[in-house]
Amino acid sequence: MIFKNFVDNKTRGVFKGEVYAVNPTEDSILGVKCYPTLRKIPGEVEIVVVVVPANVVPDIMRDAAAKKVKTAVIVSSGFSEIGNHELEEQVVEIARQAGIRVLGPNCLGVYDSRTGVDMLFLPETKVLSTGDEVIATPRPIPGSIAIVTQSGAFGVAALDYLTGRQIGVSKFVSFGNKCDVKEAEVLHYLLHDNETKVILMYVEDIKNGRDFIEVAQKVTRKKPVIAFKSGRTAAGARAAVSHTGALAGSDKIYDAVFKQTGVVRANNMEEFFDMGKALAMQPPAKSKNVGIITDAGGPGIMAVDECDLRGLNVMRLSEKTIGKFEKMKEEGKLPQFASGLNPVDITGSGTDAMFESVTKILFEDPEVSGIILLGLHHTPAVQEEYIDKVASFACWSDKPIVACDIGETEMAIRTRSTFDRLGIPAYSSPEDAARAMDALVRYGLYLQKKGAMEGYMDTFIQNRKKKYCITK
Amino acid sequence: MIFKNFVDNKTRGVFKGEVYAVNPTEDSILGVKCYPTLRKIPGEVEIVVVVVPANVVPDIMRDAAAKKVKTAVIVSSGFSEIGNHELEEQVVEIARQAGIRVLGPNCLGVYDSRTGVDMLFLPETKVLSTGDEVIATPRPIPGSIAIVTQSGAFGVAALDYLTGRQIGVSKFVSFGNKCDVKEAEVLHYLLHDNETKVILMYVEDIKNGRDFIEVAQKVTRKKPVIAFKSGRTAAGARAAVSHTGALAGSDKIYDAVFKQTGVVRANNMEEFFDMGKALAMQPPAKSKNVGIITDAGGPGIMAVDECDLRGLNVMRLSEKTIGKFEKMKEEGKLPQFASGLNPVDITGSGTDAMFESVTKILFEDPEVSGIILLGLHHTPAVQEEYIDKVASFACWSDKPIVACDIGETEMAIRTRSTFDRLGIPAYSSPEDAARAMDALVRYGLYLQKKGAMEGYMDTFIQNRKKKYCITK
Repeated sequence: MIFKNFVDNKTRGVFKGEVYAVNPTEDSILGVKCYPTLRKIPGEVEIVVVVVPANVVPDIMRDAAAKKVKTAVIVSSGFSEIGNHELEEQVVEIARQAGIRVLGPNCLGVYDSRTGVDMLFLPETKVLSTGDEVIATPRPIPGSIAIVTQSGAFGVAALDYLTGRQIGVSKFVSFGNKCDVKEAEVLHYLLHDNETKVILMYVEDIKNGRDFIEVAQKVTRKKPVIAFKSGRTAAGARAAVSHTGALAGSDKIYDAVFKQTGVVRANNMEEFFDMGKALAMQPPAKSKNVGIITDAGGPGIMAVDECDLRGLNVMRLSEKTIGKFEKMKEEGKLPQFASGLNPVDITGSGTDAMFESVTKILFEDPEVSGIILLGLHHTPAVQEEYIDKVASFACWSDKPIVACDIGETEMAIRTRSTFDRLGIPAYSSPEDAARAMDALVRYGLYLQKKGAMEGYMDTFIQNRKKKYCITK
Repeated sequence: MIFKNFVDNKTRGVFKGEVYAVNPTEDSILGVKCYPTLRKIPGEVEIVVVVVPANVVPDIMRDAAAKKVKTAVIVSSGFSEIGNHELEEQVVEIARQAGIRVLGPNCLGVYDSRTGVDMLFLPETKVLSTGDEVIATPRPIPGSIAIVTQSGAFGVAALDYLTGRQIGVSKFVSFGNKCDVKEAEVLHYLLHDNETKVILMYVEDIKNGRDFIEVAQKVTRKKPVIAFKSGRTAAGARAAVSHTGALAGSDKIYDAVFKQTGVVRANNMEEFFDMGKALAMQPPAKSKNVGIITDAGGPGIMAVDECDLRGLNVMRLSEKTIGKFEKMKEEGKLPQFASGLNPVDITGSGTDAMFESVTKILFEDPEVSGIILLGLHHTPAVQEEYIDKVASFACWSDKPIVACDIGETEMAIRTRSTFDRLGIPAYSSPEDAARAMDALVRYGLYLQKKGAMEGYMDTFIQNRKKKYCITK
C-alpha cells in the first residue's frame, strides 16, 4: 500500500523523487523493479520506509547503515509497545552508530499532500462485504495545519475528521514509540516549515521534557501549538500506561509545562479541532474582553455561560458603543426591543443589514478584543449577504471573530461553510464558538506577555490578506 | 404561514380537524372562507392561534371567551419580554375569568408531526437572493423525543439539529413568556402522552418551582427528563435577565431541584442532544461500572478520562472476564498484545469477529453495567458486520451500550448511522459517548433510589423489542 501511494503519486507528477522497492523474493512490485536488499539499489537513498516483521528490522537497519541512509521510518510494530524493549534498543543503537534518524517504530509515518509523500498503509477506500466501496481513510486537502500524533489510530481519525470538515493539512507526522525522533525535533522542523501555520499535537506522554520546553517556547512565538494530552485523570493515566507502556507523570506537570511554553491545551477531541481551526483562520485576541452578537436570545446566553466559565469577560459595552445602537434604534435601523448590552441581541426581527452594522460597530470598539457572531439562519429576514460583508471588514482587522449557526440541514451547513470559506471559523454550537474564542484569547495573552504579539500579528495579517481579502 | 401549515396538512389528510381563518378585512385566505371575528365561526372552536399585533390580543381573547374556546396559543410578541407587563396581565385576566388556558405569548406554539398540528410560522425553506431555495427550518421525523423550550429561536434550532441527525420528535412545545401554561403543565401532559418516551427541556428560569418539583418527580419515574438551563454562570444569568426579564435565582438551587427530582441536567447544547438520544434508545445503567471496548488506544484513553471526570468507574474487569480474553488469545481469536484490562483494546489488528466476541463477554459480565464501544472503522480488517451482531444481542439485554466512530467522511457516517438505526446511539467523539453513558448512569441510579427501576425497565425493554429486536 505504501509503495503504491508513492508510485501513484509519482505517476500523477506529485512525488518528484525516485522510489525503489526492496524485497528478497519478488522481481518487481506494481511493475517496478524490486531489489533484493537496500545495498543493491544503484543510487543514493535518502529515506527508508520499513514495513517488515519486527525481528527483521535490525537487519534492514544494518543495510541502511551500509547504504548511508539518513532517515528511517519504521512502521512495523512489535517493539516496546508490547514489551520488546531490547529489540527496540538494538535498532536505536544501530541507528545511533550510523547517524540515521528514526521515526517510529509502531507508527504511521508521514503524509504530505504537496510533495506526494504518503506513508499511510491504510487505503483511502475500503470494500465492504456488500461490495460497496466507501471512503474510509481520506487524505485531507492541502492546508496550514500540521498534525503531530503519538497515536496512529487517532491520527487517521483526525485526518478523516478534518477532511470531512474541509480543514486543510500541511503535514501529518505519526511517531508511535518515539525511539529517536520526538516532539521536540518535529516541532523544530515545523517551526521552519512554510506551509505550516498551526500545529496540532496529540500526546500521551512527552519524553525529554527539557528539549520539549526549549523548542516549544521558540515555536509558540511564531506559530500556535495546540496540545491534546490524554490520560489527564488518574484512570486515564493508568489506561495510557497499558497502551504505550509510558509513565506519563502527573497531569499537573503537563499543565504547567504547557502554560509556561505558551502551548494552548485542549481538553477533549472536539476542542482540539475547534481550537486548531480558530487559530489557523483568525488572529489572536489582545484581551479577554469579548463582544457577542446574536439574533437569538437563548444561544446568546449559552455563549456567555461558556465564556464566563473559561474566564473570558463578556463585559458591558462602552457608553459610546451603546449610543451607536440607540442611534440605530432612533433611525429605525434596529428594533426598539433589541438589546445593546452584551450580548447585542438584534432579535428575531434581525436582518442582514443589522448584523452587518452591529458587527462593524463592535469591530470599531477598542474595548472589544474578540467577537462571537451567532448568526442563526432561522430568523425570518436573515439571508446570507451579511456574511460577505462581515468577512470583508473582518479581513482587514487585527481583531478575531468566530461564528456559529445551529442546525444540521441545508441552510445551517451552507451558512457555516460560507463563513469558513471567507476565513471566519464557524461552529455548530454557541459553546464551541466560545471555546474557539478562548483559544484565541489564551494565545494572544501569551504572545503579549512574551512581547511577541506584534511580530506574529504582522505575519498573520499579511498572510491573511493574500488569502482572503479583496484588494480595496 | 401557520394557517397554510394547517390547510396543507388537512389537504394531505394528516390534520383531521376543522380549520377556520379569522380576519376582519379578507373574504378568504388560501381559498378558505375567512370570518370577520371568532364569534362568527359556526361550529365549536377548541383552540385559537393568535397572530395579531399585541395591542389587539385582548379583543381577540374577549371574542375567544364569548366563543367558549378552551385554549389559546398567543404567538404574538410585544408583552412582558419588552416590559409590557400590564398588557400581558390583562390577557391573563380575561383568560382566567373565561377558563381559557394560554400558551405564550411570544412563543412558537406547538408542533406535532403525527396530527399535523404545526404552529411554526417559519417556513421549511427559505428563498435566498441568489434564487436558491434551501431547507431552513425543517420539520423533524416522528419519534419519541419531546422538545419543551422557553426560547423559540433555540427551539427551531433544535428541530434543525435533530432533523439533520435523523432523531425523531414526538411533540414540540415553545411556551415563550409562560403567562399561564408553564413547565409543570407541559410535563404533566407529556407524562401521559404515549408517543413521548424522553423529554428535552430548555429553560432560562422556572416559575412555580413547587408545582414543577411535584410534577417532575412523577414524570421522571416513568420518563427521563433532560434539562438544559442556561444562565448558569453569573454573567449568563445577567444576560438571561436582559433576554426574558426573568430573575432566574441562584444556579445552585436549580442544580439541587434537578437532582432531587431526578431530572438529568445537561451543561451545554451538544450534551443536551447527546443525552436525549442515549436515553431515547438505551435502558438506564444499574451502577457506575463502565466497560470500554476499543480498537484504538488513544481514543480509549480519551473515553476513560471523560468517564473518570464524571465519576463513572472504569474499573479493572473481573478475573473471570479477563480469563475469557486470555482463552481467546490462546485460541488465536485475539492478538497476543490485546489488552484485557479496561479499556479492552483489540488493537489495530482487530476484526469484526473480535468486536462481536468481546462485546458479548462484557454483556455477560454482571459487574459491568454499561458498555462504551469505540468502533473506529480505520482499523484495516474492521468492516460493518459486527454492528448487526452487537445490536442483535444488545437488544435483548437490560444493559446499556453506546458507540463511537471518529470521522466525518463516508464510512464514519455510515458506521454511526447503522448503529443508530439498530438502536445503539452512536457519537462522533469518545467524550461524547462517555457523556451519553453518564446520562444513562445518572438516570439509572435515580430510578433505583426511588425503587422505580424495575417498572421503567420492563416498559423500556418491551417497547424496544417491538421496535428493534428480530424475534428469536
